Amino acid sequence: MAHAYDVAAIGNAIVDVIAPASDDFLKAEDLAKGGMGLIDEERAHALYARMAQGVEASGGSAANTVAGVASLGGKGAYIGKVAKDLLGEVFVHDIRAIGVAFDTAPLETGPATARCLINVTPDGQRTMSTFLGASVALSPEDVSASVIAAANLIYLEGYLFDAPSARAAFSKATSLARGAGRRIALTLSDSFVVERHRAGLLAFIETDVDVVFANAAEVTALFETDDVDAASAALAARAAVAAVTCGAQGSIVLGEGRAERVPAVPVERVIDTTGAGDQYAAGFLFGLARRQPLAECARLGHIAAGEVITHYGPRPQTSLKALAFPA
Amino acid sequence: MAHAYDVAAIGNAIVDVIAPASDDFLKAEDLAKGGMGLIDEERAHALYARMAQGVEASGGSAANTVAGVASLGGKGAYIGKVAKDLLGEVFVHDIRAIGVAFDTAPLETGPATARCLINVTPDGQRTMSTFLGASVALSPEDVSASVIAAANLIYLEGYLFDAPSARAAFSKATSLARGAGRRIALTLSDSFVVERHRAGLLAFIETDVDVVFANAAEVTALFETDDVDAASAALAARAAVAAVTCGAQGSIVLGEGRAERVPAVPVERVIDTTGAGDQYAAGFLFGLARRQPLAECARLGHIAAGEVITHYGPRPQTSLKALAFPA
Repeated sequence: MAHAYDVAAIGNAIVDVIAPASDDFLKAEDLAKGGMGLIDEERAHALYARMAQGVEASGGSAANTVAGVASLGGKGAYIGKVAKDLLGEVFVHDIRAIGVAFDTAPLETGPATARCLINVTPDGQRTMSTFLGASVALSPEDVSASVIAAANLIYLEGYLFDAPSARAAFSKATSLARGAGRRIALTLSDSFVVERHRAGLLAFIETDVDVVFANAAEVTALFETDDVDAASAALAARAAVAAVTCGAQGSIVLGEGRAERVPAVPVERVIDTTGAGDQYAAGFLFGLARRQPLAECARLGHIAAGEVITHYGPRPQTSLKALAFPA
Repeated sequence: MAHAYDVAAIGNAIVDVIAPASDDFLKAEDLAKGGMGLIDEERAHALYARMAQGVEASGGSAANTVAGVASLGGKGAYIGKVAKDLLGEVFVHDIRAIGVAFDTAPLETGPATARCLINVTPDGQRTMSTFLGASVALSPEDVSASVIAAANLIYLEGYLFDAPSARAAFSKATSLARGAGRRIALTLSDSFVVERHRAGLLAFIETDVDVVFANAAEVTALFETDDVDAASAALAARAAVAAVTCGAQGSIVLGEGRAERVPAVPVERVIDTTGAGDQYAAGFLFGLARRQPLAECARLGHIAAGEVITHYGPRPQTSLKALAFPA
């Protein structure tokens, strides 16, 4: 069956503010290295005031992923909420400019467009503090049945579990996808998200999810174990396909009754790991939508992740299509 | 004499929007490759709508330079005008976060913070379209006598010649600097600026400028010749020190009665040349303020320029001090 979209993604629409930081700065600000913490607007202003000179770039986990799908030559749609302000304009410009269909109405009044303050330590690790702003106003009315029906895969963020209205949108998308016979993919997003919503995530995966993405910290948090392989196997027992990323150690791909390790793409110098998981998911989902074997899906994921960690910013700055399929 | 600032810089306070583009796109948009064109707000919106997914970063030529001076371990002050809006907040945050003193009052009503739409072609060349917005509201009242008196060198942008009020601020800064016995440095900024203001720039250099920066296109435009060496010599006849950058071919440094070629720092892959000239000036001015020989000033300039062309954005993303003076 031909689909208008390879992937339709739903997530928190966020603009990133990315700046270098020391490990001492993370300690002084009480930031959990490598994690994502939620902050209010006041804390966002106070933290920003102490951060280094930065760069602004459109972000949002699922938005980054669908942007990566587009960069690979795929077709994508995105559903997420911005405010009617300058950062909102930047977000909308960027998602459309990369070729992703986007039509969610902006929030007319209320909080500003969401921003994620990302402190990048010299090892390239990113630590995120997110002011969710307008993004949590995403509601079931924003989820278009025609967009869901037109997509090969629906991709959802675990982050959406944090906001009641967004979670309702998530549920509506799930029902619509099930009704239309579409595959549902989920990322666990963050180990703290997993801690907050373990039971809900497990039940959702068991019932509705076909493809699940996690990193080692998230999958071990989900099954409360230190054993990544055992946790990955437990995940694969609940979904048709599971892909667990292990940073420079590559990924574990589970499905069709077996588990396989796929190596990462070596990178000379890691500048900023922001978006690495998002881009891995982009390559993987593009491969799935185009009926590729799982190992090829993972290869595409690692190529996309390998590009994004060589520069500041969570989305590809060069054509992933050209990288993945050289002439 | 000890100075509170190595460099006090005055310029158009601008936030950059940087995106990849093809040469065909430049042609279709009638953009002169490598140059800087002025656009109004309407054209800025129309051009932005057709640009690729981008990255936002604080810019402004002289602001980039003084940020580079700070990154080298120097002390800097900046004078420039933003509006009271989100991009203005970003600009103010970034210049202060890198350690530059900045106290110019923002424009309360009127146009938005200036933005520069930068299209970067696959060869790394940048083509700029600038909506000057609030930056042209810089006025003589914004030029603080105490800041000028506290600086070893005053650094001015040729770009300021384009706006009458900013040019008046420029003149006030010049008088104050002369009165306080400070050295004045100028960048010609852009070959189109030179075409528009050739006589005024020549007269200003002859009368008031101690140190002048230009690239090959600018210096040849100034003297209406194709001969870079002859034009550079003509420039050096009018200022104590002249530094002419020639891209990957390094720079020609003229002063103390002689001319010297200094090689550029080799870079594996040029991503975006935005800010290369600004960072060259940063290294050079830092060296001058610290009484280094001209060849060492140029070496510092090339190190700073070599960093900034390896990534999107016009300011250093790593410590120039660590690059220039390894432990």
